[in-house]
Amino acid sequence: MSFRGFLANLTLQIFKPMKNLFAVFFFTLFSISAFSKDGYELWLDYPRIESSALKTEVETLFSGIYFFGQEPTQEVIRKELQIAGNKMLGKDPVFTQERLDRTRLWLGTREELAQVLGLETQMKIRNLGPEGYWRGSIDFQGKSYYAIIGNQPVGILYGVFDWLKSIQTETFDPKSEKSDAPKVKLRMLNHWDNLDRTVERGYAGFSIWDWHKLPGYIDPRYIDYARANASLGINAVSLTNVNANARILTTDFMKKAKVLADLFRPYGIKVFLTARFSAPMEIGGLKTADPLDPDVIAFWKKKTEEMYSFIPDFGGFLVKANSEGQPGPHEYGRNHAEGANMLADALAPYGGIVIWRAFVYSHEIDEDRHKQANLEFEPLDGKFRDNVIIQVKNGAIDFMPREPFHPLFGAVKNTNLGMEFQITQEYLGQATQLVYLAPMWEETLRSKTYRPTPSSMVAGIIDGSDSGQKLTLMAGVSNIGTDRNWTGHLFGQANWYAFGRQAWNPYLNSEEIAQEWIKMTFGQNPEVLSKTKEIMLESREAAVNYMNPLGLHHIMGRSHHYGPAPWVEGGRADWTSLYYHRADSLGIGFDRTATGSNALGQYAHEISQVWSDPNQIPEKHLLWFHHLPWDFELKSGNTLWEGIGLHYDQGVKTAREMKSQWDSLQGQIDPERFSHVSQLLAIQVQEAEWWRNACLLYFQTFAKRPFPTEIEQPQGDLEYFKSLDFPFAPGIRPRW
Amino acid sequence: MSFRGFLANLTLQIFKPMKNLFAVFFFTLFSISAFSKDGYELWLDYPRIESSALKTEVETLFSGIYFFGQEPTQEVIRKELQIAGNKMLGKDPVFTQERLDRTRLWLGTREELAQVLGLETQMKIRNLGPEGYWRGSIDFQGKSYYAIIGNQPVGILYGVFDWLKSIQTETFDPKSEKSDAPKVKLRMLNHWDNLDRTVERGYAGFSIWDWHKLPGYIDPRYIDYARANASLGINAVSLTNVNANARILTTDFMKKAKVLADLFRPYGIKVFLTARFSAPMEIGGLKTADPLDPDVIAFWKKKTEEMYSFIPDFGGFLVKANSEGQPGPHEYGRNHAEGANMLADALAPYGGIVIWRAFVYSHEIDEDRHKQANLEFEPLDGKFRDNVIIQVKNGAIDFMPREPFHPLFGAVKNTNLGMEFQITQEYLGQATQLVYLAPMWEETLRSKTYRPTPSSMVAGIIDGSDSGQKLTLMAGVSNIGTDRNWTGHLFGQANWYAFGRQAWNPYLNSEEIAQEWIKMTFGQNPEVLSKTKEIMLESREAAVNYMNPLGLHHIMGRSHHYGPAPWVEGGRADWTSLYYHRADSLGIGFDRTATGSNALGQYAHEISQVWSDPNQIPEKHLLWFHHLPWDFELKSGNTLWEGIGLHYDQGVKTAREMKSQWDSLQGQIDPERFSHVSQLLAIQVQEAEWWRNACLLYFQTFAKRPFPTEIEQPQGDLEYFKSLDFPFAPGIRPRW
Repeated sequence: MSFRGFLANLTLQIFKPMKNLFAVFFFTLFSISAFSKDGYELWLDYPRIESSALKTEVETLFSGIYFFGQEPTQEVIRKELQIAGNKMLGKDPVFTQERLDRTRLWLGTREELAQVLGLETQMKIRNLGPEGYWRGSIDFQGKSYYAIIGNQPVGILYGVFDWLKSIQTETFDPKSEKSDAPKVKLRMLNHWDNLDRTVERGYAGFSIWDWHKLPGYIDPRYIDYARANASLGINAVSLTNVNANARILTTDFMKKAKVLADLFRPYGIKVFLTARFSAPMEIGGLKTADPLDPDVIAFWKKKTEEMYSFIPDFGGFLVKANSEGQPGPHEYGRNHAEGANMLADALAPYGGIVIWRAFVYSHEIDEDRHKQANLEFEPLDGKFRDNVIIQVKNGAIDFMPREPFHPLFGAVKNTNLGMEFQITQEYLGQATQLVYLAPMWEETLRSKTYRPTPSSMVAGIIDGSDSGQKLTLMAGVSNIGTDRNWTGHLFGQANWYAFGRQAWNPYLNSEEIAQEWIKMTFGQNPEVLSKTKEIMLESREAAVNYMNPLGLHHIMGRSHHYGPAPWVEGGRADWTSLYYHRADSLGIGFDRTATGSNALGQYAHEISQVWSDPNQIPEKHLLWFHHLPWDFELKSGNTLWEGIGLHYDQGVKTAREMKSQWDSLQGQIDPERFSHVSQLLAIQVQEAEWWRNACLLYFQTFAKRPFPTEIEQPQGDLEYFKSLDFPFAPGIRPRW
Repeated sequence: MSFRGFLANLTLQIFKPMKNLFAVFFFTLFSISAFSKDGYELWLDYPRIESSALKTEVETLFSGIYFFGQEPTQEVIRKELQIAGNKMLGKDPVFTQERLDRTRLWLGTREELAQVLGLETQMKIRNLGPEGYWRGSIDFQGKSYYAIIGNQPVGILYGVFDWLKSIQTETFDPKSEKSDAPKVKLRMLNHWDNLDRTVERGYAGFSIWDWHKLPGYIDPRYIDYARANASLGINAVSLTNVNANARILTTDFMKKAKVLADLFRPYGIKVFLTARFSAPMEIGGLKTADPLDPDVIAFWKKKTEEMYSFIPDFGGFLVKANSEGQPGPHEYGRNHAEGANMLADALAPYGGIVIWRAFVYSHEIDEDRHKQANLEFEPLDGKFRDNVIIQVKNGAIDFMPREPFHPLFGAVKNTNLGMEFQITQEYLGQATQLVYLAPMWEETLRSKTYRPTPSSMVAGIIDGSDSGQKLTLMAGVSNIGTDRNWTGHLFGQANWYAFGRQAWNPYLNSEEIAQEWIKMTFGQNPEVLSKTKEIMLESREAAVNYMNPLGLHHIMGRSHHYGPAPWVEGGRADWTSLYYHRADSLGIGFDRTATGSNALGQYAHEISQVWSDPNQIPEKHLLWFHHLPWDFELKSGNTLWEGIGLHYDQGVKTAREMKSQWDSLQGQIDPERFSHVSQLLAIQVQEAEWWRNACLLYFQTFAKRPFPTEIEQPQGDLEYFKSLDFPFAPGIRPRW
């Protein structure tokens, strides 16, 4: 083109609409390095306060903070206020030395501030326990002050985070008071992180623990990790994979773990490690790991002693034993209680605990995997030490998109039970899908167990209110990795967030949690709030629909668990899809009633009675417990075959709606995060279609019936779907 | 010292400083998330311009940029100017539509701006070739303009980056003109990245290529990677490990690679892939990979055709064959030329090339590994196609801290030879040590080969000026990973930077490159500049001293190559330390003279003659070529044993000086980067001491002589050092 020819339309050319995807990247992602919103800040971005009334209020409080405590936790509170003040207001908070004149905000423990508190307030605060906080206004000598008070420094920390949240979400009301305390004692992340930095079922890069450079090098990320957890009240973390490596218990690695424990302590976070049951043989030079062997007992005592010499407040051991090939007490003819109690005795003098996983199933036992935990643990009820807690997955199989609650909840009376949720989305879209998990957890927590009391529900077992247990635990398998935004998918952050909130209070509503998270993550824009909330709240049911509707389960890809593979067969039976869906020419589903495995018999009578009837059981659990004919009539009047098709199709449609909802927010969300989510939602739609097409085409080979006419007809070649193979999918043992 | 005693000492060494450091973290790293200098921006941070004269000058130029080209490369130039303008000046550049009135800066190709250029300038620019650029002032119709001009858009891109660099380093002079063009045609990064995101010899996290999420998801980092490379003139990149996986050549992975190629193209970067020689069997269903087999030939033709259908400017294949167990033509009785030419013929129609590595050595051949490349490639001289280039490591062993140049340089007359440097610090402190590698590369490039002409040096072989070859290549094994700062150690960035600069011009001075990088990374503070430069320039010799002085080599830990292990023996001989140092009661060193392996005989006569004499050879190469008695007299008058001790000790002392130099800059460098480097230097000092102590204590068992009194006496327990074991060291195949 000629020199002159360009002149007229130069501007047009520069700003001409993008023609293809490629151009989109250049315009949305290009300046990422300059002013990026890459998600690293999580929900702690502390944006500038826009509301001028709120700003004045907050500025006043930040301009005179009376806070004299010097404990490490109090230092980190100061630092957090410094970060928040600078980001929200553009200035440092002013910490004053004088209590009255220039002071607007008081921070301190109940004891530190006793002189200004009335007896009634003091008592109210005292009842909140070691981690609770109270915040509200206090009148003293004719003036009004705002105060955030805990019984311990960590209570102040939690109160300050809650207060900062109220500012970020523009709900701060200086006139009203608030007090809160966690309902669960141990609110814990379980990292399935290996010592070589791979992460089992990790979809957000690799382990943030850089063991090789520890103890000499401290990644600043460790501190931001602690801040994020503390902001939610998470107070415990197990650093290493439950498929454990004994080397974590060697002196070299203890020194490394000590550095992390030292960093986390001011944030109220205790460190746990996973103990490989065979460690006495692997690093102790013994010939046995028999828990009753005196040398083995001595080994663990000595190890524990050494551990506490490095980490005086070490939390204890998390143990996966006699499950999926992990060593355990059964090798020596001992039971779980004998194994767990031996470790518990070593830890007891230091106040440590044993977290023993109930996810046990054995290759040798020819029994529905669903039943094995109850078969092994019910007979041991009352046999575990007080400092042992049994960590039970939410369901009896393995973190499926929908599982009925685990029948161990309510089945034992004198055993501490903790909850294990999976935050990392092993079976829920891994890191390419937006699936907000809080509604799923809420569903479990609110499930009625009818035991120990007729009104009992899972949450009441977990928090001790129904079960009476004092040691309480909610654990979440971490979705955190080295990805810049921590969780791979930006919305994975919402799951970390929601887990923390529900662990603090298992009765919280997942919609309210979503709302909080959205405001803290994207700000106050009402359209962003409403649309994003809708996307989040429909996302889990969408995933159930396009993956595992009507109680189907465990039909994903072998080993990596990525994508659909209902055709998986061969090898260990209860690792195949065929074992779980049992489709044949007559019908589909796993009969777990009395005519089948009778796993249903492990639940309370109130449940097993109703659920045994395919016409009474909630349809969401139908094929989990029943093998039914393809023409079984659903409540809708459709046949089972039609219903399956409709659910899969609905899942795809919802995924598409989620994508178009999000895309309608373009321009209202910063381009980096907008593009990140938009690209991933496009992948999610493809994956939803893949699930629907592959599963329906496969099940049709049994049902031999046409697809319902009202659904988009599944396309693709079943043989092609079967041929797909993902040796480099994330979260599995890496290969060259 | 006892095990316990050593530990106590170690604990003291590590944890005492740690206590202080710990406090430092809270005060320096705490607010990292708010306003961090985490190194992500590399040398492209474009800080605000401080000098007001320069600012005025630059502001004027940015206020009227006449630039009408619309090619993708020209779009990315606009975007780079937008980033730079916003960061340096706080405003967007103004692109004008009119050539004269409001315009101050002209950007364009020679053809686009032909009407305003004198014939002489046009000719000058034309001679700069497709990637060259010219920048300077132009008088036109009585006014003066500044112009940046290339023959092709990529030339403008390079010119703009050079201009921005001159602004960042405050060396921009609008009055003077500058033109430049690369001396080497292919300036290339080799990623040793596996498809599961592990990186062989990677010390900066994991692979930045997220294959699993490609092609659907584009990490913004891909674009910043391209920007960084383009800013240095790096124009080629091989995405995958030379220990290759054939799956990269499947259609699914081609689609993924295509996305990267599309992103990199506007930045002038071509994509290459590694070709596994046995791919016809592994993914082609053939029974052979014999390069003369018609089906094999057809397989590669078809693969190549498919590749070009996705990536029309695909660069070609990088091949490691018949080396360290990789498959190759030897399995079929064919030689390297037959293997390489077969691939070259498949690529030739599309303009693609084969890069065939000379790093070949066979387990079966009982010959000094030093000699094998020459033995295999010299007889094939002249037999390779024109579109084949042999990629030769800088030395004949394997990227040791100091190697004499590879004897293949100068030994062949009719074979294209390219250079392979290793940027990742496999043998040079990995990611915990600051070692600036440019002086090492400079040493190699300036080594006299005496062939083909008496004045020839390695650089003249590489760039074709001595060798006459048209196809020229300098490759660097990447040190890039997912770590936020890209290279693990902040100063690893300097090695990426220096590699790019030396690939562009192999005659550049490493001190000047350091100076550029420091200014672009830390700004203009003269104390920071002088101290940091001193640290960098002494760092490589320090590493040689505390690791491998006087020509010692290959005495590091087995497999992971971390730390000292001169005691490694057993297994394959030429993978042991004993094979290389050959210490015994009489002396130490590898006799490669005519009385030994005579590897020296592969060099030009001018070299072999001088180096055969232990009294004439440069002492830095002494034990590389000679086995000498412990009492051999060095030029200093010391015995060899004393000299070894003095060198090791000097290395430690320099490392300590580096640390104290750096620490004296506290307050002059942002706290995040200051602390990052300071912590790593503390580790480096420990590692240097570990090297010195372990090696000297070990060699003393042969020398049976006291250490020189003037050195710090080596401490520690040799048995303890030998017992150390690092199964989770980075850069090796991960294990659970």
